[in-house]
Amino acid sequence: MNRMPTNPLNHLNFSGGPGVLPESVLQQVQESISAVPEVGLSILGISHRSDWFASVVAELKENIRLLLNLPKDYHVLFLQGGATQQFSMLPMTLLKKLGPAAEYLHTGYWSGKALPEAAREGPVRVLWSGEASGFNRLPTNDELHFSADAPYLHYVSNETVEGLQFHRTLGRDDIPRVCDMSSDFLSTPCNAKDFSMIYAHAQKNIGPAGVTVIVLKDQLLEDAPNNLPGFLDYKAQIKAHSIYNTPPVFAIYVVLLVTRWLLKDIGGLSKMDKINTEKAHLLYQSLDNSNDFYKGHAAVVDRSKMNVVFNLPTKALEAEFISTALSAGFSGLGGHRSIGGIRASLYNGLQLSSVEKLVDFMEDFRLHHQ
Amino acid sequence: MNRMPTNPLNHLNFSGGPGVLPESVLQQVQESISAVPEVGLSILGISHRSDWFASVVAELKENIRLLLNLPKDYHVLFLQGGATQQFSMLPMTLLKKLGPAAEYLHTGYWSGKALPEAAREGPVRVLWSGEASGFNRLPTNDELHFSADAPYLHYVSNETVEGLQFHRTLGRDDIPRVCDMSSDFLSTPCNAKDFSMIYAHAQKNIGPAGVTVIVLKDQLLEDAPNNLPGFLDYKAQIKAHSIYNTPPVFAIYVVLLVTRWLLKDIGGLSKMDKINTEKAHLLYQSLDNSNDFYKGHAAVVDRSKMNVVFNLPTKALEAEFISTALSAGFSGLGGHRSIGGIRASLYNGLQLSSVEKLVDFMEDFRLHHQ
Repeated sequence: MNRMPTNPLNHLNFSGGPGVLPESVLQQVQESISAVPEVGLSILGISHRSDWFASVVAELKENIRLLLNLPKDYHVLFLQGGATQQFSMLPMTLLKKLGPAAEYLHTGYWSGKALPEAAREGPVRVLWSGEASGFNRLPTNDELHFSADAPYLHYVSNETVEGLQFHRTLGRDDIPRVCDMSSDFLSTPCNAKDFSMIYAHAQKNIGPAGVTVIVLKDQLLEDAPNNLPGFLDYKAQIKAHSIYNTPPVFAIYVVLLVTRWLLKDIGGLSKMDKINTEKAHLLYQSLDNSNDFYKGHAAVVDRSKMNVVFNLPTKALEAEFISTALSAGFSGLGGHRSIGGIRASLYNGLQLSSVEKLVDFMEDFRLHHQ
Repeated sequence: MNRMPTNPLNHLNFSGGPGVLPESVLQQVQESISAVPEVGLSILGISHRSDWFASVVAELKENIRLLLNLPKDYHVLFLQGGATQQFSMLPMTLLKKLGPAAEYLHTGYWSGKALPEAAREGPVRVLWSGEASGFNRLPTNDELHFSADAPYLHYVSNETVEGLQFHRTLGRDDIPRVCDMSSDFLSTPCNAKDFSMIYAHAQKNIGPAGVTVIVLKDQLLEDAPNNLPGFLDYKAQIKAHSIYNTPPVFAIYVVLLVTRWLLKDIGGLSKMDKINTEKAHLLYQSLDNSNDFYKGHAAVVDRSKMNVVFNLPTKALEAEFISTALSAGFSGLGGHRSIGGIRASLYNGLQLSSVEKLVDFMEDFRLHHQ
């Protein structure tokens, strides 16, 4: 066993993604670079066709089934290409050029990225857009009128850039719900069986960039086309148990370690949510008690527990905030390049004590500048 | 600095892929899991939009340009999806449904995988196939009659499964050459400027599974379509400097470390080739001097320096060879599931001393069983 010393800077990493991973996971990952304990070889030199890697994929699937309480008629896939690849694979599979439109919500940067890729494949209807209001809130139920004939509804559960999160499930039970949960997957309990498909890239809450988890109801593929390129064909990927071609072995192994940590160290998604809620509460409280020095971007009711996005009175103060924070060890606090400002991301791997330190820093900074 | 103890089993890893990486690279990778020295954060938690990662991509591009002596009108891309994604992206970009056929060589397992994906996108002509002879040799120049109107020629430089390698460049200078170099990229000098496109996944000679290097002549994209999904569009990827969406940060960083090792520790591709040639020579010599106990699969003139594929007199002896070798610390020696037998892969990261040990083991095994 070859454990690394704890690196204090990782604890204060508020990056929007790739995000911080749990310390105990990093320690196991570090060990695996020299040798995976059960194998004796570096994780980077183990064949994806080995019995060991088959057991990694099997255990990871089972862990995700457990965490999501997934019915038997759901498949779990691990693909490359990020959420972006799903933006295309989904409509390639479900959208017919001459059929009814799929319904999309345009609630922020990432749901906006999914739209043109879907429109390339077939008809799309934007059910609601927050663009005019600068994506600072999500729609109410009264604003959403779902069609009865859409092939599916697509929305993003947590808008990473704007810090907006749905705290309810949308749509009709008779229309397939498809949700991009890239930035809040496995951060909170989720009624997976209400969705026909969930997808999430790993690099927020569950692993490194390079792998995407897809949870898919079997029924969704009943009328799927048979002429898609193999790697873009969910049916071919299911048949090949996610090893249609060489998978990202390392990234999948790290996701396995994170799910073990969620199940054994944390104790499941309800407990994870409790911690994440506490972290978010602490930070939003700090905004709310700042006498408008720190102004949250999102409407209070739609605040994200994952990404806390806020502004300071001036751009100059924001720049000073980021650089002073960096000198104090806090990294990744710059807002997304599309909207600027400040963003503190509080993914699973970030500890409550790190948020406490940030809140102390913010209070100190405010007292010196307000 | 937190250097791991050397793991002796990694030295004897003859896996066909993901393959063994150089020891000094593994040590730097292990350190980066705790903290990348220049950044102070875990490589798994660094944003792909950071200045540091931009410098990683820039240096890696430059290293590949240096190693391949690449002219200025070539692009270097790092994409996900393996060689498999390129099997589709290439014909999606260059093949017209009603135009002349692209020419493909069918020389083994992997060139065979590229064929149906190309045929899905447009007309394809198989110029030569080794299928009838069990893919135990490559075509001679007399057997190849290239058309003057093909949109491109596609072939695989090294057939990993069968251990066949072209030791010359094929095709006409007036027809774009496209080569899948997944299993010998950066293992030997290459006249890159004779190719319009080269692609290679990382997991043989240059890194972990999860990233693919594409070298592409600008001119090749002159008539490329504008309606491809963004992530499958070379032009969009070039414009985004390979960061169209979140790239596999970790895998790209490891490839950078391997190119640094190639340039600084090894001293370039000619020197790498000298080592690789010596390793292969030693092992083939051991086959040739075995009195037909170890029978090579490939015709002598087409022998691969990367993958040495051979058989023992019976399947039972092959099984015993693999298990005895494993007990002695040699791993990854089982042949590909499609053809069985034995395969010793001698990628860049494998040391000459490891081949010497394998040859000694083989001689000993033979003396006890012949």
